[in-house]
Amino acid sequence: MNVDELDTPSVVIDIDVMRRNLDRMASYCRKYNLQLRPHTKTHKIPELAWQQLRSGADGITVAKIGEAEVMAEAGIKDILLAYPIVSPQKAQRLARLAERAQLAVSIDSEESACAISIQAKEQGTSVGILIEIDVGFHRCGVANEQAAIALAEKVLSLPALKFLGLMFYPGHLLTTLEQRRTLIGPINLLLDKTMDTLKQKGIPVSVVSGGSTPTAYLSHEFHTLTEIRPGMYIFNDRNMVGAGVAQIHDCAAQVIVTVVSTAVSGRVITDGGSKTFSSDRFLAGDGRGFGLILEDHDAVFDAMSEEHGHLDITKSSRRYRLGERLTVIPNHVCSTINMHNEIYGISHRKVAQAWQVAARGRVT
Amino acid sequence: MNVDELDTPSVVIDIDVMRRNLDRMASYCRKYNLQLRPHTKTHKIPELAWQQLRSGADGITVAKIGEAEVMAEAGIKDILLAYPIVSPQKAQRLARLAERAQLAVSIDSEESACAISIQAKEQGTSVGILIEIDVGFHRCGVANEQAAIALAEKVLSLPALKFLGLMFYPGHLLTTLEQRRTLIGPINLLLDKTMDTLKQKGIPVSVVSGGSTPTAYLSHEFHTLTEIRPGMYIFNDRNMVGAGVAQIHDCAAQVIVTVVSTAVSGRVITDGGSKTFSSDRFLAGDGRGFGLILEDHDAVFDAMSEEHGHLDITKSSRRYRLGERLTVIPNHVCSTINMHNEIYGISHRKVAQAWQVAARGRVT
Repeated sequence: MNVDELDTPSVVIDIDVMRRNLDRMASYCRKYNLQLRPHTKTHKIPELAWQQLRSGADGITVAKIGEAEVMAEAGIKDILLAYPIVSPQKAQRLARLAERAQLAVSIDSEESACAISIQAKEQGTSVGILIEIDVGFHRCGVANEQAAIALAEKVLSLPALKFLGLMFYPGHLLTTLEQRRTLIGPINLLLDKTMDTLKQKGIPVSVVSGGSTPTAYLSHEFHTLTEIRPGMYIFNDRNMVGAGVAQIHDCAAQVIVTVVSTAVSGRVITDGGSKTFSSDRFLAGDGRGFGLILEDHDAVFDAMSEEHGHLDITKSSRRYRLGERLTVIPNHVCSTINMHNEIYGISHRKVAQAWQVAARGRVT
Repeated sequence: MNVDELDTPSVVIDIDVMRRNLDRMASYCRKYNLQLRPHTKTHKIPELAWQQLRSGADGITVAKIGEAEVMAEAGIKDILLAYPIVSPQKAQRLARLAERAQLAVSIDSEESACAISIQAKEQGTSVGILIEIDVGFHRCGVANEQAAIALAEKVLSLPALKFLGLMFYPGHLLTTLEQRRTLIGPINLLLDKTMDTLKQKGIPVSVVSGGSTPTAYLSHEFHTLTEIRPGMYIFNDRNMVGAGVAQIHDCAAQVIVTVVSTAVSGRVITDGGSKTFSSDRFLAGDGRGFGLILEDHDAVFDAMSEEHGHLDITKSSRRYRLGERLTVIPNHVCSTINMHNEIYGISHRKVAQAWQVAARGRVT
């Protein structure tokens, strides 16, 4: 089937661009001797997680136990849940899953450590633990090296837990390359201090897990790092282009939409709105637009209803006609794919694959 | 099961509040002799569409053919697709669906009329047509009465179409009550002119379909209206409270989340982020916040990651503890429910129902 025969709106993935993105990251990690543990929340598709593993990844990352369950069901054996687990109910599911896969989880509280230890002990399993440090994003993570050491000692004192090391998420570094470089210094200071103190205490650390797509190719500038967890790099998106870490031709994910109304002067309405793209904003430049229209860079995708994309074409000389298709690079590919039950792999404009977004909606 | 036993994040619907919302709208419509055709894009759940029909609605509205298919599959026989159909592929599905249900569709172009006519003729079915007029929202809809008449005459000239009347969406009226009242005048002028011209031409009009939740209880102030299509009224949300058309106690939909991290000073992190709530903004007041925390009106839900809700608690005196649950009124309930595969009906804190969001993800 040709891509033009797909009904719209549809998310399509250029398989060739995706492979190039996967290979580039795997080869960077090999060069700097970093483990690669892609965050699969970007696609939530077991077949693509397997493709990442086959092309050089060492394990995967997920954000939800439900996602881990889907990935384990597909035979994936090395999973990091980069999300704090605090309830007994979730700790129990985690401990059960550890029967089928090698599982690690990031925590930032004694309560998490205790909840997981109790359940893992009861299930007769063992769960790896990374201690999350807040390196400046101020979301999760202990504040400093003292808190990290105290929590590491707690983990070491509890049964059915394996202390593995540290994790951080530099989410405040989605800015310009210059800002990213400036912010690495303070993170390195914190990492060095924490690692030194752990060493002094005789606590062995096998994993220091960092990374995200915007910082991925700077990973060798972070001290003590052993692995990275980029997610978006498999597809890239308009925000990654805005952050200067990808070019338009590196964007593997596109949304095909149809022009459904041209009745209002100066506007073009497509069939892709917030239930197709999500409402995620553009994080760079003037913040305008919900996606880039590849056929017309002068069109501004400036508003969305749930099922309507509103294009402002007052600055464009392009002639639009009802029923024609447009190709949109979404602002945030993770949120876009999360709206869909199925997406399509294409190669040279032929539809080569239909992938179920199997872990979509596994919200717990 | 008690609501406290549901894993989080979960969307729960207070069935008693929902029934009150349904009854109030049905009784308003009876009082003013208006047909009620709820927009089911808010919930996408056939059981709730049936509940609306049983409590006084005359038919339903959908935004996608996929949604219409799910609703028809559940035995619903009177469906308006309030969305322009332009492709032969979609026109064919529409025409086929017209074998199983009484179907109408809104259009604003001759191309739509022709595409639907061709397919309906081929299928031996007939599709009702409403002509959409742009009353000021500038999304879809013909611009004036001349364009409406010309399109009506085209529809009347084509086989397998039934011209029913007019439709409009006053989406620019989600403001204050005063602004809403001011904007009704120009809409009435346009409606009057159009209806007069249709009458002069001898074109009979049986339906004038307007409405939305923010304007629903002002519907009797619109001239010539025969039916309304509110969606959100079944649940309401923070935006409806912000627009002054609902109170907090009218909000039937809540999201239950768990506090998963308190490690960062001044912040509380919950397990509900943009993949639980959507990123839809607050459309009233200062526009801040992604939902209202019922337990603590001083907490500001000021940022989201995909799976993290970030609360700013610097203005709050409440003590938060890890693992506790919070109850959030979402900004936009339609987008929130659209993130979930299943939501729950509760009554007096008991979980009474689990509903599959069956038409979710039916994006084409």
